[in-house]
Amino acid sequence: MSKHLKALFYPENITIIGASTNPEKIGHIVLNNLLQIGFQGKIYPVNPKAKEILGQKVFSSIQELPNNLDLAVITVPRTLAVSSLAELGAKGLKAAIVISAGFKEIGGKGYHLEQELIAIANQYNIALLGPNCLGLINTHANLNATFAAGLPQRGSIGFFSQSGALCVAILDWALGENIGFSKFISLGNKAVLDEADMIEYLGEDEETKVILGYIENVCAGEKFIQAAQKVTRKKPILLIKSGRTAAGARAASSHTGAIAGSDQAYSTAFKKAGIIRILDVESLFNLALAFSSQPLPQGPNLTIITNSGGPGIMAADICESSRLNMTRLAPKTIENLQKILPGYAALYNPIDIIGDADAKRYLDTLEVIKDDPNTHSILVLLTPTSAIVPHLEDLALGIANFSKTIDKPLFCVFMGRKHVRPAQKILLDHKVPCYFFPEPAIHALESMFEHAEWRNKPVSRPEILDRDLSRAKEVILQAQAKQQREIVEFQALEILEAYNLPHPSTELARSSEEAVEIAKDMGFPVVLKIASPNISHKTDVRGVLVNLNSPEEVKQAFLEITSRAQRLRPEAHITGCLVQKMAPKGCKEVIVGFKRDDQFGPLLMFGLGGIYVEVLKDISFRLAPLTREDAQNMIREIKSYLLLKGFRGEPAINFQALEEIILKMSQLSLDLPQIYEAEFNPILVNHKQALVADVRLTLD
Amino acid sequence: MSKHLKALFYPENITIIGASTNPEKIGHIVLNNLLQIGFQGKIYPVNPKAKEILGQKVFSSIQELPNNLDLAVITVPRTLAVSSLAELGAKGLKAAIVISAGFKEIGGKGYHLEQELIAIANQYNIALLGPNCLGLINTHANLNATFAAGLPQRGSIGFFSQSGALCVAILDWALGENIGFSKFISLGNKAVLDEADMIEYLGEDEETKVILGYIENVCAGEKFIQAAQKVTRKKPILLIKSGRTAAGARAASSHTGAIAGSDQAYSTAFKKAGIIRILDVESLFNLALAFSSQPLPQGPNLTIITNSGGPGIMAADICESSRLNMTRLAPKTIENLQKILPGYAALYNPIDIIGDADAKRYLDTLEVIKDDPNTHSILVLLTPTSAIVPHLEDLALGIANFSKTIDKPLFCVFMGRKHVRPAQKILLDHKVPCYFFPEPAIHALESMFEHAEWRNKPVSRPEILDRDLSRAKEVILQAQAKQQREIVEFQALEILEAYNLPHPSTELARSSEEAVEIAKDMGFPVVLKIASPNISHKTDVRGVLVNLNSPEEVKQAFLEITSRAQRLRPEAHITGCLVQKMAPKGCKEVIVGFKRDDQFGPLLMFGLGGIYVEVLKDISFRLAPLTREDAQNMIREIKSYLLLKGFRGEPAINFQALEEIILKMSQLSLDLPQIYEAEFNPILVNHKQALVADVRLTLD
Repeated sequence: MSKHLKALFYPENITIIGASTNPEKIGHIVLNNLLQIGFQGKIYPVNPKAKEILGQKVFSSIQELPNNLDLAVITVPRTLAVSSLAELGAKGLKAAIVISAGFKEIGGKGYHLEQELIAIANQYNIALLGPNCLGLINTHANLNATFAAGLPQRGSIGFFSQSGALCVAILDWALGENIGFSKFISLGNKAVLDEADMIEYLGEDEETKVILGYIENVCAGEKFIQAAQKVTRKKPILLIKSGRTAAGARAASSHTGAIAGSDQAYSTAFKKAGIIRILDVESLFNLALAFSSQPLPQGPNLTIITNSGGPGIMAADICESSRLNMTRLAPKTIENLQKILPGYAALYNPIDIIGDADAKRYLDTLEVIKDDPNTHSILVLLTPTSAIVPHLEDLALGIANFSKTIDKPLFCVFMGRKHVRPAQKILLDHKVPCYFFPEPAIHALESMFEHAEWRNKPVSRPEILDRDLSRAKEVILQAQAKQQREIVEFQALEILEAYNLPHPSTELARSSEEAVEIAKDMGFPVVLKIASPNISHKTDVRGVLVNLNSPEEVKQAFLEITSRAQRLRPEAHITGCLVQKMAPKGCKEVIVGFKRDDQFGPLLMFGLGGIYVEVLKDISFRLAPLTREDAQNMIREIKSYLLLKGFRGEPAINFQALEEIILKMSQLSLDLPQIYEAEFNPILVNHKQALVADVRLTLD
Repeated sequence: MSKHLKALFYPENITIIGASTNPEKIGHIVLNNLLQIGFQGKIYPVNPKAKEILGQKVFSSIQELPNNLDLAVITVPRTLAVSSLAELGAKGLKAAIVISAGFKEIGGKGYHLEQELIAIANQYNIALLGPNCLGLINTHANLNATFAAGLPQRGSIGFFSQSGALCVAILDWALGENIGFSKFISLGNKAVLDEADMIEYLGEDEETKVILGYIENVCAGEKFIQAAQKVTRKKPILLIKSGRTAAGARAASSHTGAIAGSDQAYSTAFKKAGIIRILDVESLFNLALAFSSQPLPQGPNLTIITNSGGPGIMAADICESSRLNMTRLAPKTIENLQKILPGYAALYNPIDIIGDADAKRYLDTLEVIKDDPNTHSILVLLTPTSAIVPHLEDLALGIANFSKTIDKPLFCVFMGRKHVRPAQKILLDHKVPCYFFPEPAIHALESMFEHAEWRNKPVSRPEILDRDLSRAKEVILQAQAKQQREIVEFQALEILEAYNLPHPSTELARSSEEAVEIAKDMGFPVVLKIASPNISHKTDVRGVLVNLNSPEEVKQAFLEITSRAQRLRPEAHITGCLVQKMAPKGCKEVIVGFKRDDQFGPLLMFGLGGIYVEVLKDISFRLAPLTREDAQNMIREIKSYLLLKGFRGEPAINFQALEEIILKMSQLSLDLPQIYEAEFNPILVNHKQALVADVRLTLD
């Protein structure tokens, strides 16, 4: 494919199907845009009626076209678009942009026509963008194959969007703010080329430093994660994923027919792939500006230089609420500051050089901070006082020059608008991000810090764990043969044993006498649980009694549980009761589970049992396969982690044993695709061990 | 005071102490600013050396000035400023703006000079703004008594700021964005006039519709809350309070010497007063724009009209994540939409009128939505498609006219920059807020909805609860006489009884035999707790044993507890053990407490016992005095509320009994100012009752 992507982004010739003499038609606008940008290759407008459009010779049919066609832009109505693509394919076309609409997005016949498009593209191996899209811009190849109304500057941001409207809005924003792009891509219905292809391509593209995107869904979860994982190790990907909420998802499905996966799965997938998830368009730009112009910080420490107290405090507040720290300046730095600053300046971070500061005082302070060993990034904060306003442009130039002498990120916040705007422009022209308020600057720096962390993190690979896979598969086959929807009790125990998962010893008692004998052998106290293939929610029939301390209690419990179950669920076959060794005192209950996401596969979850998961939603998530580090982080991420670490003098739980269970759940989720949902609940953990006390596996 | 505030904001004459011939001096700039704005009253520049400045006759001394002085602006060095104020006071000056710096903010002698200023202002009843401030602007009285570099337009926003730098930055922003102000006030050190005075004044000011402010601390908590509570019932107050975090607070204290109260107390106070707390300057403007131009929504339902799917989804996402709802349109509305919109439009909210929509389609849709009974507010969302771009200005005018025909808030989001900017300007000129992205619009609407809720909420007054106040005071007096730092055990029981607070029956046993006898009388099971005036943290010596079921267990427990305490705390006097009736099974443990905030008085807290408070920080706060509604909301606000409501089939707790305890804690906090911190922990609650099982009261 990548060879044909070259034909898409760097074509030597472009065919326009539906080139028109009517300046209002898309086929005309595309041609005009190509001419305006000064495309250097050949252009073949196709139109059966016209002879010449905008000075270009027109071909009356596809048959007349020369061979070696690189890229075709198709703007004709949908049925004609399909047949044209087939003709072009037969002539060896390499890439196509189908702007025409009326396909999957409107359903019905449109859906089937899109299937035809896909089949033709596959048959002839055509890199197809769209349909139902705005087109594509490559500023570095003088290529504007869109019908958009403006052209962005050259730059280093690669952008793709599933929404054509968002392309339009972002283009307008970029034009207003002088933001430059390397590639600008409208994905449309993503019939063939999708976000993963773009990520892969832009990842390799030397003109692109930062990848920005807007998506409503992902076409192929695994392909997407793999492509992104590779790219984010060398350049940042910032994505907006819409349809976060129920209302948004409803709106999305009435929109392009995109089936949105669970939003949690998306967040987890982004995290796994090192993608920075953005929630609003404004942040998308603020971050793009930062990432495309400054080096990544090598640590969390931010040093703030300000000419005013109030804004300094606000900035310190924001810094503290982020993952950044306020730098503790080295004593030597403070000494040097003392030498150059007036006595009334505040020498500690934020360094307040006071309202009468001029450009020189700012620049002198920067020179001192440059050598501070504790500083990882610098923020120059300014309010337009009468002392600095006449020198704002000198200061901007000074800062711009200074920034070239350091390898740490440097950001400016020039608060205000009217007087600071020209200085801001100078800074932006010199690739120093300058914002009007502290928040966006510090949030952008925080994202850069997190991205640097991600890039510095060694790649760890998931291990494949020992297990008796054929034994596990056998259990599944048997259950499927019996058309079970769930795997419980002894079948589930089989699975636990196949994965060598520790569990309390458990035996089936068919009578109260048997239960007493088993309990005596195990040792008291014990737990009794109803055993029935038809009852999966044991607590619904109050089918679990714990802490049974004597033969009498066990006997009575057996009779109580079985008779109640029979009364409440007369249709159920009652096998008897499971007798289980009672967990030692002081055990915590935790839950490990997964649910298979349609798009991204098994989504694993971890949390403390009972209300922590159900009421407080204190849960951590990861997508399989898990590394050991993932398992460790899942445990650490929940708020109630402190309880596991040892609260009020209790010993910490055996984390390794718990990690092992999480990793095995991940392994199981990959081994047994027939299982749709799984839960180990509860897992009983203390400082010694972790035991899986109950299991539910739901089949697909 | 308010009479003299009139002299501050609407002076008939202004004296400038330190008027200067040097255009760089503040005394010159102030005079020039007054002349530039066309101040209509008399101006008396004072300078011993000059004869005339900027065409104004100069007075060589204060003695020479005429009588009936309204306002003096003092710009001379601090010592002279103090003596000048005294002279002016003696001549009957009503109001003063002290711009001069070098007072409290630098400490030392400055602190004492500020005390002198205050004494003089009090002696002569002068409304004094500053010192260390930028001055004051009243656009509706042609008054610019600042040394600022620009003048904002007339408008309806009243602004005050504790940070002069923020005044400068905000002024610059307002100049760049054409934002109008009614009053613009730099508070400086707040020696006399503070934020509460400004809130009170701006609350009554007819030119001010919205009050904006930036503060780092509040001077007098109660005065502040009372002033704001009155004003927020008729106009919104939006405040930034800096120094939220530890780093911010450190920076604040090195700044103006403001002693920042706990940030939690501030948030709680703002809530109590109906103040909208803003976290960043940009939001301050976005909200000010919304509040000052549109009516409040009468409900949460937002209807979105869009010409593009993607942005519609994004807006729906943001709406769903807020306290607003997406309107469910009435069937009649949908019917009417069907009549005017093309077949491919999406008629459900967000109403997608598709990318080929022109101005007429937008306006026709608005006319239909106007009559929808379920809609409380309207958002017009637009991407600059080629169909709409040529008609953007017509559309803007059409929307502006339409907005005058409805009494619901109408907001626009015109996504982009270059092409949409002129249309945005038209809308803003017609008082229709227009943003570039959906987020700020929806967040502003959400704030307006919450403010409307606040204004519609009936005012409820705290009740005064029955209690035996003299009995409670007696306990405190006795404890103080003994120089106790804490009130525990029987003294605490006395307090509980004085407030008629239910508690488990508790008796003191001096020997194990006595303990057994008491337990027998009470009935098993019981709890034993160490009784010692010297041991306040009973668990530190493992001084509590629960669930004692028999005489033997009680006896053993007594010996164990007392001997262990003696061993671990050999210096302590051990009185014996408290025997307490064991709480019924299934009780939940909750905590009610308060801590006295220096600024705002008793800050009450409520939460579930154990890890909920300590690890998960799941706590709700209110400032005393509490209304019954406050107590109810405190219980409802915590996340673990679901546990109290009945989780997994348990009955709900007795909420009324718990409310009663919270209200009595509030009463106690007001009755007994000697108590610095108090905690009922645990309170045992079930569906029947709520019992205070343990109490700790810390004296000041």
